Amino acid sequence: MSVLIVGSTALDSIKTPHAENPRLLGGSASHAAVAASFFAPVKLIGVVGEDFPKKYLQLYRRHQIDLAGLQILPGKTFHWSGEYEANMNHRRTLLTELGVFETFTPTLPRSHQATPFVLLANIAPALQLHVLDQMRRPRFVVADTMDLWLNIALADLLKLLRRIDGFVLNDSEAQQLTQEDNVFAALQKIHRLGPKYVIIKQGSHGSILSSPKGFFLCPAYPLRKVVDPTGAGDSFVGGLMGYLASAKGSVEANLRRAMIYGSVVASFCCEGFGLNRTAKLQRAAIEQRVTELERLTKF
Amino acid sequence: MSVLIVGSTALDSIKTPHAENPRLLGGSASHAAVAASFFAPVKLIGVVGEDFPKKYLQLYRRHQIDLAGLQILPGKTFHWSGEYEANMNHRRTLLTELGVFETFTPTLPRSHQATPFVLLANIAPALQLHVLDQMRRPRFVVADTMDLWLNIALADLLKLLRRIDGFVLNDSEAQQLTQEDNVFAALQKIHRLGPKYVIIKQGSHGSILSSPKGFFLCPAYPLRKVVDPTGAGDSFVGGLMGYLASAKGSVEANLRRAMIYGSVVASFCCEGFGLNRTAKLQRAAIEQRVTELERLTKF
Repeated sequence: MSVLIVGSTALDSIKTPHAENPRLLGGSASHAAVAASFFAPVKLIGVVGEDFPKKYLQLYRRHQIDLAGLQILPGKTFHWSGEYEANMNHRRTLLTELGVFETFTPTLPRSHQATPFVLLANIAPALQLHVLDQMRRPRFVVADTMDLWLNIALADLLKLLRRIDGFVLNDSEAQQLTQEDNVFAALQKIHRLGPKYVIIKQGSHGSILSSPKGFFLCPAYPLRKVVDPTGAGDSFVGGLMGYLASAKGSVEANLRRAMIYGSVVASFCCEGFGLNRTAKLQRAAIEQRVTELERLTKF
Repeated sequence: MSVLIVGSTALDSIKTPHAENPRLLGGSASHAAVAASFFAPVKLIGVVGEDFPKKYLQLYRRHQIDLAGLQILPGKTFHWSGEYEANMNHRRTLLTELGVFETFTPTLPRSHQATPFVLLANIAPALQLHVLDQMRRPRFVVADTMDLWLNIALADLLKLLRRIDGFVLNDSEAQQLTQEDNVFAALQKIHRLGPKYVIIKQGSHGSILSSPKGFFLCPAYPLRKVVDPTGAGDSFVGGLMGYLASAKGSVEANLRRAMIYGSVVASFCCEGFGLNRTAKLQRAAIEQRVTELERLTKF
């Protein structure tokens, strides 16, 4: 089955203590779509400007990503620029130029409206809701978010939470949303806001699933060197949804393994700037790390 | 087989946002010894003053802890007082009265010198070395430490590292010791300092073992409420060594499971002030959480 993914499609200029890379392919939807493409057919919903490099369209196409829902509009592509500190856990935004993204209204081609799996990657909750409004009874809907929307669009986000199956956020966002320091106490409160499945991302510490069947503690793949963590969270949820769309059986039965696949794709994402490493990935390399994670957690 | 444990034996006065508990049984050796006692016979090496409450000696004895190596000297028991902030990750020391601990020289009874498993719980590295000097070819020696010794006794600690099999420290100590932000890069550097087995504790995120056979990612048991985390790290390493001493087969083969048992005992430790919860623990409750951790990590 296929996955519809909406989110940002951007150009990222990323600075680390070791290198500077201008105008990489970035954005939540780009990372999630490429990550999902290793497992299932992907339909991308997004917007770019006329300056969007042809090579990035080719990159999408090499991953068999359906671009019928990608609008190319007069104007500039959303451009984000950020800088990481030495330990990669802190980054600051240097620049945000919204460009054509400022007036983006995601409109779904008719052919996309019955896609069974829907990933509302990080983007304004009002746009996530707008996409959901156009879908015809999707089988499984997951939304990701970021601290910005908790600060400036909480009402929309709370409305969204009542309409989705799964919600993905990181630990500090969970704390901000619930006022709970303890992640397991926070999970309980988030379920009460709507979603049956809640996943809390903890970066290099892995992630936690809370579902009607209890918790799953999902490890992160051990990396000795992180080149650029931008997009790792988007890759995680993209890989997760791609795997779910490809797997037989119930979502509940497949979700743990889906998180493992997401975690592995995210680990590759961190090993290169932007999508440099992920875009070169082969399925066999993914399977190898999944097997390794089994070995690393067995007792 | 039995475990010899040396470390601090103290009275802890602990304040949290919710409660205040004066003069609890504390210290690295107390926590480690009680944790280990659920699995194997324990020989405690330590010092207390004449003010040490009889009920705490009884508590040790109820756990069949051999007290032949516990000195009771004229003067006051080591007294530590600390306060936790709301999220329990930050604590500050309010008071440290060394008392009889100031001139403590751990002297091993002859009967203790051939104990096969040795845990050098957190205490000055010079004292850890002094204990090691008195041992006759122990089978497996593990040392724990804290940031204080990295700051004021690094030379002793480095000497110790060349003489032990396993070293346990937390992530910020590993970073301080190696100047590496990345925990897996830090592990590589710590091996070069001597120990074959290195375990990095990450609090509620679990722990990581690095051994000649690779990494093991050990989960922490999920807790919705932490009452008092004091002694959790000591309980972890105590439970680990107790399990190792009780298990048949090679240390390498048992180490992963030993960490799981340590992690479970540490989770109980966090659920009460001082040793309140741990001291009431039954082996069956430990086994239940071990089984639960298997379920929580399987994919």
